[in-house]
Amino acid sequence: MKRIVSAIEVARLANVSQSTVSRVFTPGASVSEKTRQRVLEVAEQLNYQPNALARSLITKRTNMIGLAMKDIQNPFYHEVLGIFTNKLKAKGYSVLFVYTENEEIQQEEINHFLEYNVEGIIITDAMLSSNIVTKLKNNHIPVTLFNRYDKNLECNSVSCDNINAANEIAKYVDHLYCEKIVFITGKINTSTSQERQEGFVNYFKNKGIPVEILEGDYTYERAFFLTKELIEKDYVPDVIFGANDITALGALDALKSKEIKVPEQTMVIGFDDIKMSSWPNYNLSTWVQPIEEMVDETIRLLERNQRETGHKTVKVQGKFIHRQTTK
Amino acid sequence: MKRIVSAIEVARLANVSQSTVSRVFTPGASVSEKTRQRVLEVAEQLNYQPNALARSLITKRTNMIGLAMKDIQNPFYHEVLGIFTNKLKAKGYSVLFVYTENEEIQQEEINHFLEYNVEGIIITDAMLSSNIVTKLKNNHIPVTLFNRYDKNLECNSVSCDNINAANEIAKYVDHLYCEKIVFITGKINTSTSQERQEGFVNYFKNKGIPVEILEGDYTYERAFFLTKELIEKDYVPDVIFGANDITALGALDALKSKEIKVPEQTMVIGFDDIKMSSWPNYNLSTWVQPIEEMVDETIRLLERNQRETGHKTVKVQGKFIHRQTTK
Repeated sequence: MKRIVSAIEVARLANVSQSTVSRVFTPGASVSEKTRQRVLEVAEQLNYQPNALARSLITKRTNMIGLAMKDIQNPFYHEVLGIFTNKLKAKGYSVLFVYTENEEIQQEEINHFLEYNVEGIIITDAMLSSNIVTKLKNNHIPVTLFNRYDKNLECNSVSCDNINAANEIAKYVDHLYCEKIVFITGKINTSTSQERQEGFVNYFKNKGIPVEILEGDYTYERAFFLTKELIEKDYVPDVIFGANDITALGALDALKSKEIKVPEQTMVIGFDDIKMSSWPNYNLSTWVQPIEEMVDETIRLLERNQRETGHKTVKVQGKFIHRQTTK
Repeated sequence: MKRIVSAIEVARLANVSQSTVSRVFTPGASVSEKTRQRVLEVAEQLNYQPNALARSLITKRTNMIGLAMKDIQNPFYHEVLGIFTNKLKAKGYSVLFVYTENEEIQQEEINHFLEYNVEGIIITDAMLSSNIVTKLKNNHIPVTLFNRYDKNLECNSVSCDNINAANEIAKYVDHLYCEKIVFITGKINTSTSQERQEGFVNYFKNKGIPVEILEGDYTYERAFFLTKELIEKDYVPDVIFGANDITALGALDALKSKEIKVPEQTMVIGFDDIKMSSWPNYNLSTWVQPIEEMVDETIRLLERNQRETGHKTVKVQGKFIHRQTTK
């Protein structure tokens, strides 16, 4: 068992008050350079560590943010995790991290965050019940949905304007005179998949052009299977729009395995712009989600809730990037 | 600011002692079912949350493990992170997560872990100075390197037996009568790249067969570039062994872009068995790192250090998996 050196011992040996020791270890607190040096030397000598947890009981601030994530196989969320961790670190927050294995965040996982007194919770790609949102509200812990939107939940939400983005993609496809148009959905109970479908399909519905909708699940494997099946039924689409990049990559590889020429015979479009989409072998045309902007907005909303209550919905735009899978 | 309900208030209203309330919220503690129910009801009513941080000051246990990771682009580490988080959760630990942007873990990042009184630290793919290891030792915080080994550091280490694995791969290549043999390294200052090179190259050195060594950096892009350059110099290897899967996939795509037939003209072998390697478009032959076993060993070593001092080095074996990029 380690012996914990207290601030009192450091204060005594450095011949300063305990509050001076405390100020030396509080970012931004005022203390003379000479005193600071002396305290740091004594702290080093005694192997003293300021205790963030003990401090949190006094300041009521833990500087911890809980982050819950589900889709371990989607590279989009790895990029998201990296950006969140770095941006939160730059603001002095630590990340308490939970991978959830369930579609819906479990009470037990939220309890875990509550026990550690996190100052805010970010949920990326899992569902949240309104029960849990109410419980968090009672505990005054702000929660922000990232890349998800649920009109029934009274919490912050940051996502891409998926309806508009998918509408723009539809316009682009339309000007290339496509007739056989396929949309592969993501997990159908997610707002991202629903909104992208709505924006894309409604555009063509208004023009009386049918869209073939295939039920995917945001995985490469499922999209590969669905596309292979299409080609084996002798249906070669003019364009396939996948609800995310990993779906589009699965479709693209299935087309290649059936020796369908991309983009000459079939065009493929994704959504996200994960790093892999720009690999030379893929060169996928896709919608760029502005992840940095989305992460900044998420942190801004969490911090806003430290000063005021209420919740906000933020939609960011992004842009289409044309690579080699579209004409 | 939220009002924090104390265990005393719960005890009073439930008409039990404070220690009974504490037992109800301590996993495994003895308390009658009837009392447990009454306490839980009152806790719910008062919106009481047991405070892990306050408890940690008494028990000296935070149940937090610090996890530091660097390579955000390598899918191998995303799989590793998912498995660590789930296995640690099952044992009652939380994960305090840090992405490090530097080759070597910085003192500041370690301080962060120390401030939160983590019970152990796992470092995946970053370097650690012996200074920091000494400081952690003085603080009695066990540290385990995952997928790294450094004979100069006095800390636990869990990795694949890379030398033996690469030696087995060399044997396999040798029985296929290859002459033009290429090894693309990872980051050359990592133990994984050094050991895989040693095991592979030494096998052929003993037989008087030269191996062309290209300096990669564990990225897809670098391997793609190096392989493309080789082919453009009219050097078509019989086999390319990449120091990890993402390297092998870069090489594979470069070969395809130059219309080199795999495995007929050039075979490709990776190391890791990331999920992407079994995608139908890749079907990469590779060495399977037994991630689950490696994670279990890492946690076991951290927990061992709660009872005894000293450090251990564990090497696990893994196995070769033959897919479609080798004959």
